[in-house]
Amino acid sequence: MTDAINGYACAAPGAALAPFQFARRHPRVDDVVIEIQYCGVCHSDLHQAHNDWGNTRYPVVPGHEIIGRVINVGASVSRFRTGDIVGVGCLVDSCGDCPPCCEGEEQYCLNRPTPTYNGVDRHDGSTTYGGYSERIVVAEKFVLRIPDRLDLKAAAPLLCAGITSYSPLRHWNVGRGQRVAVVGLGGLGHMGLKFAKALGAEVTLITRSAGKEQEARRLGADDVLVSSDPAQIGPAAGRFDLILDTIPTPHDLNPYLSTLRLNGTLVLVGLIGPIAPPVHSGLLVTARRSVAGSAIGGVEQMQEMLDFCAAHDINCDVEMIRMQDINRAYERLLKSDVRYRFVIDMGSLKARVPAE
Amino acid sequence: MTDAINGYACAAPGAALAPFQFARRHPRVDDVVIEIQYCGVCHSDLHQAHNDWGNTRYPVVPGHEIIGRVINVGASVSRFRTGDIVGVGCLVDSCGDCPPCCEGEEQYCLNRPTPTYNGVDRHDGSTTYGGYSERIVVAEKFVLRIPDRLDLKAAAPLLCAGITSYSPLRHWNVGRGQRVAVVGLGGLGHMGLKFAKALGAEVTLITRSAGKEQEARRLGADDVLVSSDPAQIGPAAGRFDLILDTIPTPHDLNPYLSTLRLNGTLVLVGLIGPIAPPVHSGLLVTARRSVAGSAIGGVEQMQEMLDFCAAHDINCDVEMIRMQDINRAYERLLKSDVRYRFVIDMGSLKARVPAE
Repeated sequence: MTDAINGYACAAPGAALAPFQFARRHPRVDDVVIEIQYCGVCHSDLHQAHNDWGNTRYPVVPGHEIIGRVINVGASVSRFRTGDIVGVGCLVDSCGDCPPCCEGEEQYCLNRPTPTYNGVDRHDGSTTYGGYSERIVVAEKFVLRIPDRLDLKAAAPLLCAGITSYSPLRHWNVGRGQRVAVVGLGGLGHMGLKFAKALGAEVTLITRSAGKEQEARRLGADDVLVSSDPAQIGPAAGRFDLILDTIPTPHDLNPYLSTLRLNGTLVLVGLIGPIAPPVHSGLLVTARRSVAGSAIGGVEQMQEMLDFCAAHDINCDVEMIRMQDINRAYERLLKSDVRYRFVIDMGSLKARVPAE
Repeated sequence: MTDAINGYACAAPGAALAPFQFARRHPRVDDVVIEIQYCGVCHSDLHQAHNDWGNTRYPVVPGHEIIGRVINVGASVSRFRTGDIVGVGCLVDSCGDCPPCCEGEEQYCLNRPTPTYNGVDRHDGSTTYGGYSERIVVAEKFVLRIPDRLDLKAAAPLLCAGITSYSPLRHWNVGRGQRVAVVGLGGLGHMGLKFAKALGAEVTLITRSAGKEQEARRLGADDVLVSSDPAQIGPAAGRFDLILDTIPTPHDLNPYLSTLRLNGTLVLVGLIGPIAPPVHSGLLVTARRSVAGSAIGGVEQMQEMLDFCAAHDINCDVEMIRMQDINRAYERLLKSDVRYRFVIDMGSLKARVPAE
């Protein structure tokens, strides 16, 4: 189990991802050892490989949308056994003691949750390596049960893109009788449309470019607003209870804020950076609107989301790639050229085929 | 009743306020005619006189913190009679039909509420003139009952500064077991301290300058944080459930946001303008924090607030002035040189004494 593991890593800023061998820890008593079958490609993987956030520990093995099969369990593991199909998301540990941890909101752990990759193991101080690899060893608490009904390939991105969209919809009590807008149609946005619709809301896609109407409706939108067209955005003033803003780059929130009704909230799930151009406070004050942010979700809510997907026949729309093609996938990701998430078939790692 | 009314108006941007005669409307069936005894001086009065918001209709008669005595009522008025002591705040009308109006949130009327001054009467199209005058004529619905226990001079600013601080504390359910911070110690801030304390919260004043501790504690603060001192603001990370931000000029929200706990909200009640420097979305995303805004309060909540003040022996700290001294008061207001609100003794208008 501590044999060399094959994976793909980025060794330095600007370097292409390339084969990398490393060791996983011996399973502790509460650990689950997982043979990885599929791993989604999140925009964060690319940011981290490029050191966009200035905190990358090289070599970095990305990947936090992991689906696999249990091949071994520690002595105290009770919820999983060999052969189970399981998932691992963005986190593999947290302090477990702070108020957010105690409330099942491990993603907001006051002592910083341990990320699945580019983190530091709380017990042995080792670097965490992600899902672009053959196997992973994760504490039982952070392992999710994947319902039988889900297509495993398409389920992988639920573990980050899915929960990131689902959690704020649940936190702000989205349901029947409410109007929800989703800004941006990417990995997060397409899941936001599906979840908001399944939760019973009237759903609108707000997009900067025309031509996405048919696609948006296929994914659950009742309506589409082109935000660059004042003739569309103006009459939408005061319409929405909640806006799920999935855009990862700086953008003007003010036109979106005007479409919120009294007490409405715009929740940022894609942007990590300064909110510029600045929000005009008059848009907040005149209708008691809020700008909020939300990060992934807790373990319990992730399981709820996976079960919700099984019950409502929800999956991600994915494009399968081989591990060897990851660099080309990153190039396409930078151009938003994917509908809507790349998923790596980790079986390709063993095949050792050359890159395209 | 339609005789010429004496008041003070600003005739043009940059002009000093000066005596001005104008007519009030004949009372309609639902109108209350009020002889004004006291009128608070709000920072908005100054902004509007200076045309800072670009929408001033000159000549403008400011004043929306009005206390007076009923001297006549229209035929259908049932809640007031001659001799009653009443109040009028920032609004004198709204559409009455839109969802916010129907929910008692007239301040958020979708068809724009009618401001007490610098507005346009919904019935006859005339300009509304405010409380820097002898009398005012206001529809019964927008007239407040002033509880006997309140000191009338000190009650005037409750009608704007008071409700602006009170409403968000109630909306975000401030009470026992919660930690509230008030940013800024002016007209709004000093009321925020009193209200938050009376509602049962643990209250902290956040101020940019040291030396306000004794005063803050007198007003209800349990603690004082000097925001310019990293040694004080750093350890306060994650402390507060709600921050009432009363600062009316552009300022950096980021240090304050870091002091909010999971799901905490910073509510802007003073600033009308771009939020600059920009908020960093990471501060929102990593603890599901919100930046919100709130405007005054509805008629029903204003009455609740006045009754709450009577029950808890709360008043504004005021400095009385004569109408003739308004220009000097504006100069001092610009320097924040007032503890904590100027109130005009409108009896001075009749005395026709010269300005100091």
